[in-house]
Amino acid sequence: MFAVVFIVVAFVSQTAARYSADWKSLDSRPLPSWYDQARVGIFVHWGVYSVPGFGSEWFWWHWQGQRPPDPRYVNFMSKNYPPGFSYPEFAPQFHAQFFNPREWADIFKASGAKYVVLTAKHHEGFTNWGSSDSWNWNSVDTGPHRDLVGELGEAVRNRSMHYGLYNSLYEWFHPLYLKDKRNGFKTQEFVMHKLLPELYNMVVRYKPELIWSDGDWEAPDTYWNSTVFLAWLYNDSPVKDRVVTNDRWGAGCACKHGGYYNCEDKFTPGQVPKHKWEKCTSVDTLSWGYRKNMRLSELMDLPSIVKDLARTVSYGGNYLLNVGPTPDGMIPAVFEERLRGLGAWLKVNGEAIYASKPWRVQNENTTVTIWYTSKGSSVYAIMTNKPPKASVQLFLPVTSATTTVTLLGNPKPLPWSPVSPNAGLTVLLPELADSPGQAWTLKLDNIQ
Amino acid sequence: MFAVVFIVVAFVSQTAARYSADWKSLDSRPLPSWYDQARVGIFVHWGVYSVPGFGSEWFWWHWQGQRPPDPRYVNFMSKNYPPGFSYPEFAPQFHAQFFNPREWADIFKASGAKYVVLTAKHHEGFTNWGSSDSWNWNSVDTGPHRDLVGELGEAVRNRSMHYGLYNSLYEWFHPLYLKDKRNGFKTQEFVMHKLLPELYNMVVRYKPELIWSDGDWEAPDTYWNSTVFLAWLYNDSPVKDRVVTNDRWGAGCACKHGGYYNCEDKFTPGQVPKHKWEKCTSVDTLSWGYRKNMRLSELMDLPSIVKDLARTVSYGGNYLLNVGPTPDGMIPAVFEERLRGLGAWLKVNGEAIYASKPWRVQNENTTVTIWYTSKGSSVYAIMTNKPPKASVQLFLPVTSATTTVTLLGNPKPLPWSPVSPNAGLTVLLPELADSPGQAWTLKLDNIQ
Amino acid sequence: MFAVVFIVVAFVSQTAARYSADWKSLDSRPLPSWYDQARVGIFVHWGVYSVPGFGSEWFWWHWQGQRPPDPRYVNFMSKNYPPGFSYPEFAPQFHAQFFNPREWADIFKASGAKYVVLTAKHHEGFTNWGSSDSWNWNSVDTGPHRDLVGELGEAVRNRSMHYGLYNSLYEWFHPLYLKDKRNGFKTQEFVMHKLLPELYNMVVRYKPELIWSDGDWEAPDTYWNSTVFLAWLYNDSPVKDRVVTNDRWGAGCACKHGGYYNCEDKFTPGQVPKHKWEKCTSVDTLSWGYRKNMRLSELMDLPSIVKDLARTVSYGGNYLLNVGPTPDGMIPAVFEERLRGLGAWLKVNGEAIYASKPWRVQNENTTVTIWYTSKGSSVYAIMTNKPPKASVQLFLPVTSATTTVTLLGNPKPLPWSPVSPNAGLTVLLPELADSPGQAWTLKLDNIQ
Amino acid sequence: MFAVVFIVVAFVSQTAARYSADWKSLDSRPLPSWYDQARVGIFVHWGVYSVPGFGSEWFWWHWQGQRPPDPRYVNFMSKNYPPGFSYPEFAPQFHAQFFNPREWADIFKASGAKYVVLTAKHHEGFTNWGSSDSWNWNSVDTGPHRDLVGELGEAVRNRSMHYGLYNSLYEWFHPLYLKDKRNGFKTQEFVMHKLLPELYNMVVRYKPELIWSDGDWEAPDTYWNSTVFLAWLYNDSPVKDRVVTNDRWGAGCACKHGGYYNCEDKFTPGQVPKHKWEKCTSVDTLSWGYRKNMRLSELMDLPSIVKDLARTVSYGGNYLLNVGPTPDGMIPAVFEERLRGLGAWLKVNGEAIYASKPWRVQNENTTVTIWYTSKGSSVYAIMTNKPPKASVQLFLPVTSATTTVTLLGNPKPLPWSPVSPNAGLTVLLPELADSPGQAWTLKLDNIQ
Repeated sequence: MFAVVFIVVAFVSQTAARYSADWKSLDSRPLPSWYDQARVGIFVHWGVYSVPGFGSEWFWWHWQGQRPPDPRYVNFMSKNYPPGFSYPEFAPQFHAQFFNPREWADIFKASGAKYVVLTAKHHEGFTNWGSSDSWNWNSVDTGPHRDLVGELGEAVRNRSMHYGLYNSLYEWFHPLYLKDKRNGFKTQEFVMHKLLPELYNMVVRYKPELIWSDGDWEAPDTYWNSTVFLAWLYNDSPVKDRVVTNDRWGAGCACKHGGYYNCEDKFTPGQVPKHKWEKCTSVDTLSWGYRKNMRLSELMDLPSIVKDLARTVSYGGNYLLNVGPTPDGMIPAVFEERLRGLGAWLKVNGEAIYASKPWRVQNENTTVTIWYTSKGSSVYAIMTNKPPKASVQLFLPVTSATTTVTLLGNPKPLPWSPVSPNAGLTVLLPELADSPGQAWTLKLDNIQ
Repeated sequence: MFAVVFIVVAFVSQTAARYSADWKSLDSRPLPSWYDQARVGIFVHWGVYSVPGFGSEWFWWHWQGQRPPDPRYVNFMSKNYPPGFSYPEFAPQFHAQFFNPREWADIFKASGAKYVVLTAKHHEGFTNWGSSDSWNWNSVDTGPHRDLVGELGEAVRNRSMHYGLYNSLYEWFHPLYLKDKRNGFKTQEFVMHKLLPELYNMVVRYKPELIWSDGDWEAPDTYWNSTVFLAWLYNDSPVKDRVVTNDRWGAGCACKHGGYYNCEDKFTPGQVPKHKWEKCTSVDTLSWGYRKNMRLSELMDLPSIVKDLARTVSYGGNYLLNVGPTPDGMIPAVFEERLRGLGAWLKVNGEAIYASKPWRVQNENTTVTIWYTSKGSSVYAIMTNKPPKASVQLFLPVTSATTTVTLLGNPKPLPWSPVSPNAGLTVLLPELADSPGQAWTLKLDNIQ
Repeated sequence: MFAVVFIVVAFVSQTAARYSADWKSLDSRPLPSWYDQARVGIFVHWGVYSVPGFGSEWFWWHWQGQRPPDPRYVNFMSKNYPPGFSYPEFAPQFHAQFFNPREWADIFKASGAKYVVLTAKHHEGFTNWGSSDSWNWNSVDTGPHRDLVGELGEAVRNRSMHYGLYNSLYEWFHPLYLKDKRNGFKTQEFVMHKLLPELYNMVVRYKPELIWSDGDWEAPDTYWNSTVFLAWLYNDSPVKDRVVTNDRWGAGCACKHGGYYNCEDKFTPGQVPKHKWEKCTSVDTLSWGYRKNMRLSELMDLPSIVKDLARTVSYGGNYLLNVGPTPDGMIPAVFEERLRGLGAWLKVNGEAIYASKPWRVQNENTTVTIWYTSKGSSVYAIMTNKPPKASVQLFLPVTSATTTVTLLGNPKPLPWSPVSPNAGLTVLLPELADSPGQAWTLKLDNIQ
Repeated sequence: MFAVVFIVVAFVSQTAARYSADWKSLDSRPLPSWYDQARVGIFVHWGVYSVPGFGSEWFWWHWQGQRPPDPRYVNFMSKNYPPGFSYPEFAPQFHAQFFNPREWADIFKASGAKYVVLTAKHHEGFTNWGSSDSWNWNSVDTGPHRDLVGELGEAVRNRSMHYGLYNSLYEWFHPLYLKDKRNGFKTQEFVMHKLLPELYNMVVRYKPELIWSDGDWEAPDTYWNSTVFLAWLYNDSPVKDRVVTNDRWGAGCACKHGGYYNCEDKFTPGQVPKHKWEKCTSVDTLSWGYRKNMRLSELMDLPSIVKDLARTVSYGGNYLLNVGPTPDGMIPAVFEERLRGLGAWLKVNGEAIYASKPWRVQNENTTVTIWYTSKGSSVYAIMTNKPPKASVQLFLPVTSATTTVTLLGNPKPLPWSPVSPNAGLTVLLPELADSPGQAWTLKLDNIQ
C-alpha cells in the first residue's frame, strides 16, 4: 500500500500549493465550500453492535472492556447467550437481508439532508466493506456478505448528496493496538500495519467527501500519524479538492486542529464559535446504534429536532442527525418518520438553513423562542414554538421604512409595526399552518 | 376436561335463565354493557410468525399452505434459510427477552383503550400460554418460556382495562383438523381432542372478558360445536356474566350470529348496523403481525386512525386497533407513538367517543368532514380535518334558542348563528389547538 | 381412528381362532417361528437425545424430570446453552443429513443380524415418523424432515431382515400423561387421545413384525389398555400372523405376560428360562443413544459381545445388540466395526447360533469357558477364549463310538479321545484361525 | 516483533557455531537426536474444517478456492446451509466442549508415540492459540475460547512426549497473501506483517520441539524468508538446541533442504533415503481432518497401520500417524482404538522400532512378508502377516554358530537351522500369541 502511494506521490506533478504535515499548514486549508452550505447531514451507525441491539454501539466495551464491566451488559449476555459466547460471534447474525441502499437514500434525501455519513468502521474494528486489513472481520467475509459502504455510497451520490465515512482510529480490542498501548504508544504497529493501510485504501476506494474521524483520544496525533495522513489527503488523494474532515485526530486535537470542529459529541456552544463546527446528535437519545428495546420516551420528537437544528444553525454549525438501522437492514419506521418530518419542515423553512450565516445576534426570547440566521441581506427569525397570540414581537432587529416581513411558506408580506423607533417590530401573523415540527420562520428584509 | 366441566355444570344451582345451545337462544343474550361503553380497544398479534417477520401473520400459509405457494415467501425462505427449514423451527427464536407486560399495558392504557385483545392462538396453532393440548408448540415449552397470556392479562387488569383473547378455531396444519377436513367435516376429532379441551381450559384459566373467535369459515358451526360452547360460556363459565364474543363461530355466522359482529376484517358499514359491531384494523396496513421490513408509507398515520375511529363510532361500532410486537417483546416505537397520539386525542375528545351512541345522522361534508355521535342530550360533531376558515357550518342539526356550542378542550361557549331558521348553524371557532390527530370536536347541546 | 378400527373389526370374517383381551388368552398365542430362529437382532436408539449426545437417551429426564435433577446434566446445559433453552429446541438440530438407510441396512446385514428394531418413539415422545398425533414433535415436521421409520424399514426388508419398532408407552412430559398420572391413572386421556391412536396408526402404516414395548412400569396394563391392543394386534392387524412382541405392557407384566420376555434391560438369567426371552444390550455400556463423548473404555469390545451372545443363546435367548447413530445420521465407525466383526464371527460360527436350541447343559469351564447350543442331533461347544494348549477337554458330553467332532470353519474331522468311558472327550485342535471375536466352535455329532 | 527479536539477537553472547541464513549452512545442522530415536508420532489435524466435517480439511478450498469449485462441496453447502453462509461462520460452532487435553495425551501416550504434532494453523489461517496476528480468527477469540495449542502441549510434555506444531506458510484466502501472489511474490506483505510475526511469536510462546512446516509450494523460500527464520530458530530461539523441522520451506525445498524430509504426503520410498525422513499418514485414508460421515471401509485397520509402520521404519523413516478430533473435542473412539492397538503392538515389538536403524537389507518375501530393522548387533525381522506354518524361512541373514533367535514377547530362544551353509535360517515358531496388529518380530543376534 505504502509503496504504491508513494510512487503515485512521486510522479504527480504538483503545481498547486501543497500542505505540509504539520498543523500550522494543515489548519490553514480552507474548508471546501459545499460543507458550510450543506448544513444538514444524516449520520448512520451500523455494525456488529446492531445485532445484540442492547445498550449502545459501545456494547462490547461496556461488556468486556471497561473495569469493572457494566453489570447490565454482563447480565444481558448471561441471560440470553451461552457461556463463552464472544462478541465476534454476533457477526454471522448481521444479516442485512432487507438492506436496500436506494430506499435508505430516498429517506435521507427526503429528510432534506445534503450529506450522509456512514460508519465505515467503529471502535469494534469491523469494517462495513471488504477491507483486506480486517480479514474475516468485515461485512463481505461474514454477516451481510455485501459492500455496505460502496452500495450506500452509490445510492447517496445518485441522489446528489455528499457521502462521508466515519472511521475510528482506535479499535478497543485490536491486539496490535493493545500492544502499542501497553508500550505507551511508543510503538506504532497498529498504525503502520492496520490503521493507515486500511484508511488509505478506504479513501482511494470510496472517495469519501467527508472523513469523520473518531476514537483518537487515547494517543497523541503523532502516534496516529495524523498530519502525514492529512497532508496526503489534502495534497494527493483523489478527493483532495473536496474532502472535509473533522477535528478528532489525536488527544488534544478536538476543538483545535483539523477541518471543522466537532469538539465533543452533541457539542452545543453558547456563542458563535470562531471555527466552522458541526453538532452531531442522535434521534435515539441513549444510543447511536440500533437498540432493540428503545422506547418512544427515549427518542427525540420532531419539534426537539427542529429546535436543535435551528439553534445549531444560528450558531453557524452543521447538524448531523443520527439513525441506527437494524441488523436486518431497515431504518426503523419511527426514525423514518422523524427524517421525513424534518424534510417536510425544511421544504418550507430550508431557505433559513441551507447556506445561511449566523446573524449578529443568535436568539431572543419573547413570547416565543426565536433563533436567527441570515443569508445575503435577509434575516430569518425561526420561532421554535407557536406564538400564543396572533402577533409576535422581535426586539433585536433594527428596522427601517423599507423593512418587509414574510412568513416562509406564505406568499404575502405581513403587516408589522415598530416596537420603538428603529428598534424591534411587532409582526401580525396569519393563521399558522400546522407544522409537526412546531417551528415557523419569519423572513426579514431591509433590517439590520 | 369434559368430565370436570359437566360435573361443575351439574352441581351449580341454576336460578338465572339459562341459554340453550341454539342460535335463537344464544343470540337473545344481551351484550354485557361494558363493551358498548368501552369503544376503543387494542388488538395484539404476536406469535411464531413474528420471528420471520415477513409478509404477515399468514406467513406459513402463503409459504406452504396455499396452492401454488406465494413465490415471495418461497424466495424469502430459500434466500435466508437452509433447505428443509420448517416453520416450527422458528419457535426457538421467539425470545421475548424484552417483554415487559407492565410497559405494554402502560402504553395501551395511554392510548385511551378500554380493552386489550391478545392472540392466545392464531391459525398456526401455537399458544401463547402453556396449553397442555398444544405440547411443545406453546410459549412455555419453547421460545419465550413464559405465560404470555397470563402475564399480559394481569398487567392489563391492574390498569382497569378489560382483557380479551383471540382464538383461532381452525389450525392450518393440525393433523387432526386436516383429517376432519378430508372427511368433509363429518368427523370432529380436532374439535373434540384439541380445540374444545383447549378452549374450555383457556376460559377457565384466564377468564377472558372477550373471546375474539376467528378461523371459523371452512366449516359450519355444527362442526365446531359452537353453540354448545357458547351455551356453556354464557351459562356456566366463570365469566358468564361479563364475557363478550364476536360472530365468527362457523361458516355463515359472521354478521349473523354470536355476540357483537365483526363481519369481515376492517369492515366499514355505510349506515348504522342494527347490531352492535366492531371494526378491527391495524396500524400496519399490510399485516397484523410484526414485519421486520415495514416502511412508514405502509403504516396508518395518526390522522387516519382518528378519522377511522370517528367514523366507526359514529356508526355505533367499537374500534379495535392492532399492533404487532417484535419477537423480542417490544412494541415498535412507531406503534407506541400512534397509540400515545391516539390517547392524547382521546384525552380531549374522548367524551364524544366513550359510551356514545349514534346520532340520527352520522356525518356531513361541509368545508370539513364531520362525524356525529351523541350522548344523553348532547351531540358531538367531530371535524376530521382542520376548517379552512375561522368558522364552520353544520347544516343538519336543528337548533333552538337554547342551543349551546362548545369546543372540547375549550372552556368557553362558542358564538354561533343559525344558517336558516331552525336549520343549521354557523359556529365561530377559536384558534384551534394543535392536534397531531387533526380532529376537533364541537359539543352541541339543546339541538335536535 | 377408533371408529375406523372397530368398523374393520366388525366386518372382517373370522374363521381362525381369535384371542380375547385377557392375558390368559393372549399369553396362549404361540410365538411366530421366525423370531426364535433369528436369534440376533440390532437395536437402534435414535432421537432428539442424539443431539445433545450427552449422558444417555434419558437426558431430558435426568435434566428436568427427576427430583432433584442430576447436576451433571444441569451443568452441561448451563455451560453450553443459553438460559431457558428447552429440550424441544434441540429438535431442529437433529439434521440426519447423512442418513442413508441402505448403508445402515448393509451394515446391519453384515452383522449377521436377522432383525432390526428402531425406536419409533422413545420416552421423549418424539416420533421418528410423521405421526399426526405428535404434531410438530416428529421427524417430518422438524429436524430430519424425513420418515426415518419408513425409510429404514424399506431398506431392512429389502435385505431380507425382519423389522421391528420400539414404542414407549409413557412419555415423561406429555401433558395428558402427566394429568392421568396426577389422577392416579384413573383417567386415560393420554391413552385414548395420544398413545393408542398413534400406536394403531403406526402398526397399520409400517406393519412391524416386532413391537418392542417399553415405558410401561408406572401404570398397570389396564391403564394402557394393553390387552385390547394386543387382541387387535393378534386378531385383526395387518401383521397378526407374524408379529412378535415383548413383555412390557404394564406394571407387573415384565417376565410374566406378553410375547417373549425381556424382563429387565440386559437381563442375564442363570438357567434356561421356561419362556422365550431376549437379552437387549448396547455396545456403549453407558448409553443406548449416541454420546458425543463416549470413550473406548466405555464400549464393549468384540470378544465381550461374542461371549455375551454365546451365553445368551445357550440359555435360549435372542440377542439384541444396540447402536446409537449420530444426529447427522451416521453409525459411528467404531460401532460399524463391532457389527461387522460380529458378522465375520457369525459367518463361521452362525450354525451354532441361528435356529439353535439350548442343550441339556449350558456351559462348563475347563481350560476355557464353553457355552453349549444344539440343533437337531448336533451339539455346539463355543469356546469363548483361546485354549491355552493344542487340545481341549469337554467333560459333560456323553460320547459314543460314532461321535464326531469338527471345528466350524474347518472341513476336516478332529481327532478326539474319551476322557473316561462314555464321559467327556479330549479334542485335539488344529491351529486356530485368528478370530477377532476370540471364540471358536466345536460341532459334536452323535453325542448325548 | 522484529525489533524485539533483533535486539535479543544482538545482545546474546555467541560462543557456539552459528548458522547463516543459507541452505548450505542450515542443511549442515545435525538433527537433534531425540527425533531419530522417537520413530513414532501422532499427528492431529483440528480446526474450523472440523465443524463442517465433510470431505477433508481442504473443505474451504474445494468449496470456494479452486476453479471450478468441487460440486460435492457446493452441494453440501447449498443443501445444509442458508445462501451466503461463509466459512468464517463455522468458527462459532467449533465448541471443543469436551476437549480434555489430559485424556488426549493419555491416548497418545498409550499409542506408543514419542511425539505429538498439532496443527497450530492450517491453510485456513485459523490459529489454535490466541495469536494477536490473527485477530478474531483464532481459538481464543471465537469458538473454543481456549488456548488449544498451549493446553495440549502441557499435557503432552507432562507425559514425557515431545511436542511439535504444524504451521502452514500460506493461507488460501488471506488478503495480504493474495496480494503478494498477484504481485508474483515480488512483495512480501503477508510474510512481513502476518506470517513471520506470528511464527516467531508461536515459537517463543510454545517452544515447540518440532515445526512441521507446510503450504510452502506456491512461492520460493526467498519469499517466505525461510532461511532467515531457520537461522534464528537454530541460533537464537529458545528451542535452538532441540528443535527439529521438516523440508517444506519453499517451492523446490521438499526432499532437498531443511531438517528431516517429508517429501510429499504419505511418501513411501523404494530404498533407504540418504537423509532422515518421515512418513505422515492418516487413519482416515480420505482426510486428515475429522469427517462426520467417515465409514469403516475408508479407515486403515490396525494391521495396515503396523505394516506401514514396519516398512517405514525399515527404510529409516519416522512414522507420523494422524487422527482428526471432532469439533466437540473428542478423539473418535475408532481412532482411539487404532492408537491403543498400535500401542499394544509396540509394547511387545517396540524394541524393533524405537531407536532402530535400517539393516543392510530392508525386506524379503518368503511365506510371509518380512521387514528388517537393526539396533546395535541385533537384527529384527518383523513378519507382517501370520506364517501359514509353524516355521518360517529367512533367506537373507548370514548366520553363524552363535546365531540366536527369539520371538519378541517370548522369553525362550527358538530353535533354528540353516537353509544352506551360512545363508538363511529356518526358524521353528512357537504358537504365536494373538496379535490384533497381525505382526510378530523375530530378534536375531550374531548374524550378518
